[in-house]
Amino acid sequence: MTTTPVKVALLGCGVVGSQVARLLLAHADDLRARIGRPLELVGIAVRDLTKPRPGIDPALFTADADALVRRPEVDLVIELLGGIEPARSLILAAIASGASVITANKALLASDGGSIYSAAESSGVDVYYEAAVAGAIPIIRPLRESLVGDEVTAVKGIVNGTTNFILDKMHTAGAAFAEVLAEAQALGYAEADPTADVEGYDAAAKAAILASLAFHTRVRISDVDREGITGVTPADIAAASEMGCVIKLLANCALSPDGSIAIGVHPTMVPLDHPLASIPGAYNAVFIESRYAGRLMFMGPGAGGQPTASAVMGDVVTAARNRVRGTVGPGESTYSARPITPHGQVVSRYYVSLRVQDEPGVLAKVATAFATAGISLQAVRQDGVAVADQARLGVMTHQARADQLDATLASLAAMPEVQPGITVMRVEGA
Amino acid sequence: MTTTPVKVALLGCGVVGSQVARLLLAHADDLRARIGRPLELVGIAVRDLTKPRPGIDPALFTADADALVRRPEVDLVIELLGGIEPARSLILAAIASGASVITANKALLASDGGSIYSAAESSGVDVYYEAAVAGAIPIIRPLRESLVGDEVTAVKGIVNGTTNFILDKMHTAGAAFAEVLAEAQALGYAEADPTADVEGYDAAAKAAILASLAFHTRVRISDVDREGITGVTPADIAAASEMGCVIKLLANCALSPDGSIAIGVHPTMVPLDHPLASIPGAYNAVFIESRYAGRLMFMGPGAGGQPTASAVMGDVVTAARNRVRGTVGPGESTYSARPITPHGQVVSRYYVSLRVQDEPGVLAKVATAFATAGISLQAVRQDGVAVADQARLGVMTHQARADQLDATLASLAAMPEVQPGITVMRVEGA
Repeated sequence: MTTTPVKVALLGCGVVGSQVARLLLAHADDLRARIGRPLELVGIAVRDLTKPRPGIDPALFTADADALVRRPEVDLVIELLGGIEPARSLILAAIASGASVITANKALLASDGGSIYSAAESSGVDVYYEAAVAGAIPIIRPLRESLVGDEVTAVKGIVNGTTNFILDKMHTAGAAFAEVLAEAQALGYAEADPTADVEGYDAAAKAAILASLAFHTRVRISDVDREGITGVTPADIAAASEMGCVIKLLANCALSPDGSIAIGVHPTMVPLDHPLASIPGAYNAVFIESRYAGRLMFMGPGAGGQPTASAVMGDVVTAARNRVRGTVGPGESTYSARPITPHGQVVSRYYVSLRVQDEPGVLAKVATAFATAGISLQAVRQDGVAVADQARLGVMTHQARADQLDATLASLAAMPEVQPGITVMRVEGA
Repeated sequence: MTTTPVKVALLGCGVVGSQVARLLLAHADDLRARIGRPLELVGIAVRDLTKPRPGIDPALFTADADALVRRPEVDLVIELLGGIEPARSLILAAIASGASVITANKALLASDGGSIYSAAESSGVDVYYEAAVAGAIPIIRPLRESLVGDEVTAVKGIVNGTTNFILDKMHTAGAAFAEVLAEAQALGYAEADPTADVEGYDAAAKAAILASLAFHTRVRISDVDREGITGVTPADIAAASEMGCVIKLLANCALSPDGSIAIGVHPTMVPLDHPLASIPGAYNAVFIESRYAGRLMFMGPGAGGQPTASAVMGDVVTAARNRVRGTVGPGESTYSARPITPHGQVVSRYYVSLRVQDEPGVLAKVATAFATAGISLQAVRQDGVAVADQARLGVMTHQARADQLDATLASLAAMPEVQPGITVMRVEGA
């Protein structure tokens, strides 16, 4: 074991960054044993130098991130700034100067990961990003390495803890979205600006990263058919319960029969006997379906300083070991170059809820609209409602293409007996 | 991409081996894209050359395994023979001749892994063994690499599908062990000689491998406190149900407060709301508790030709990539050198069931036996039984050391009011 340290620069010292800094300092002996050389934290770039950060040597802090990543002795750069810029420029500068990169930046990887992976390949350095998806759950590494001899056919899961917490509360407390969001914000489970979480952007970024790895192709966040949870109503929650389901925000990436990739993030009714139905609160869970390994599930804390720092540290140890051995891990794999399935061709089960005039022949007309579009039905429920002469119809379909559903919805909307305000939700399962 | 192939020798061509051979041949293009060079299967060692093996070139087969592993051009040896010898000698010969090894041989690794890892370290080659534990579930790699920057405090799980299937059936059908075993054998879920599964040897080997990785020390199968499921009766199953539990064969590896490792395999009552309670049939699931990542769970098919072959192929790709890049993956990590917790110091909750004379003061005497040993009780149930003047007591303890329990059982057995045949079972949870 040599004593020449592996030198580490840290960008960002928030909840995750400060925990990473503490782990690097507190576990120095363990880390040296695992890597074969000591790790040395040589600098931490922060925006505000005046903020107190107990337990970390003040001499480490710098406001000049750009100079830090370009220091020629730096072996590893840990990027925990988030967002596109300056993260991207700093990562590319670090790679150009010969450092390997560990990042948790899902937004950047999902929008422009390709240019980062290509730069790393050219420079012969590593980019690791286990912490970018599903917090501490080891999911990137299994996809990138363990299942590399298999054929993944689908990856789906709950990859955003904030929305899972909110939907969970809407189910258990029967409360409305806005009310539960305010509670989640008060508890620190949702940010002051919750858009990235509740509109599904965060989940869409993670879906793009998972799909890229699973299917050996480049998938970007802009490829993801995205729908958040802001439109989920207590009525939707009640309808899901009636159908023996819970509503989860599911990221869904699947190989279509033609070899293209169907990828979406949608509030989805999940049957109670499905393992994803019971994933509680701020947990994440990812399901992988593969041709040979079958169905695998990974579950764990999806966010938080300590879990995310654990994932970062695993990558730090791997990247440092590679550095010590003069090698790099597997790079980007894009050999399959698959297209994205067009929206209309994506297949799902659907639950359609509509209000109709309660008169003879209406159910037949509604059923005919589905049949004309080639959609077969799995279940139909009709209930009376408070408004006289109206009834509510809940229709659960078998697997159907989105264009078939769109055609059905258009013909339903054109019927005088159908009230405005048809709601539609995807349903998990075949 | 060069065309010089990475040359692979296969030892064994049973259920898993023949599937691996087929994958190597059928997915040659994919594998070349993932590795950067083609894989070439150069030989398959089998005992019986006359057995028909459709879809595999007969010229590949040889009865001389020893000559095959010593061929100097062989880069990777996949050992799927199982058992200690000749597997160990062949693996050591392969390593000595410079090949990396992929193996699914839990029995060998759990009894003598250390000498294999040391030989590999000296020769600068890899030993990968994802398929040795929990079939297709990527659990070795997360422990070996993802969580390497964290501190694992416990690994527990269902790692034997045969016993999980049998216990599941005993619960759902109310049938006795022997009857369900016969059914499992008829279905191919249990072997003709079921000893390794039903006596817990298979689970104990896997527990030793998991503990070695989780705690960075050498743990052998002989270190594992092992109890199979042959003694589990319909009465135990009924008692578990009454207490809101199911019985699972759990492998349990945990850091004791003194830093030693408590490791055992036991039929264990698992509360129904615990995620391990709902792992069905032949599935496996592993729970990891770690200081920073928190609680992670991994679930998937625990056995079978295709899932196991998928795990083998992931390792083949990784080892081949390392070979192409002239490097090796992480070797054995034993820096913590932790001792095994002595049996008497291991802590668990227990459920103790006993028959007593139904007369005044007996419950007090029984309760005093527990109290004298320092064990506090969580729940007590008393029921009448068919025999006149007798009652059955079911006692659920809080956490207690095994030596406290042993002392209690000795004083209970010495009481004239207590009938012979006290049964004891561990209970999962704090």
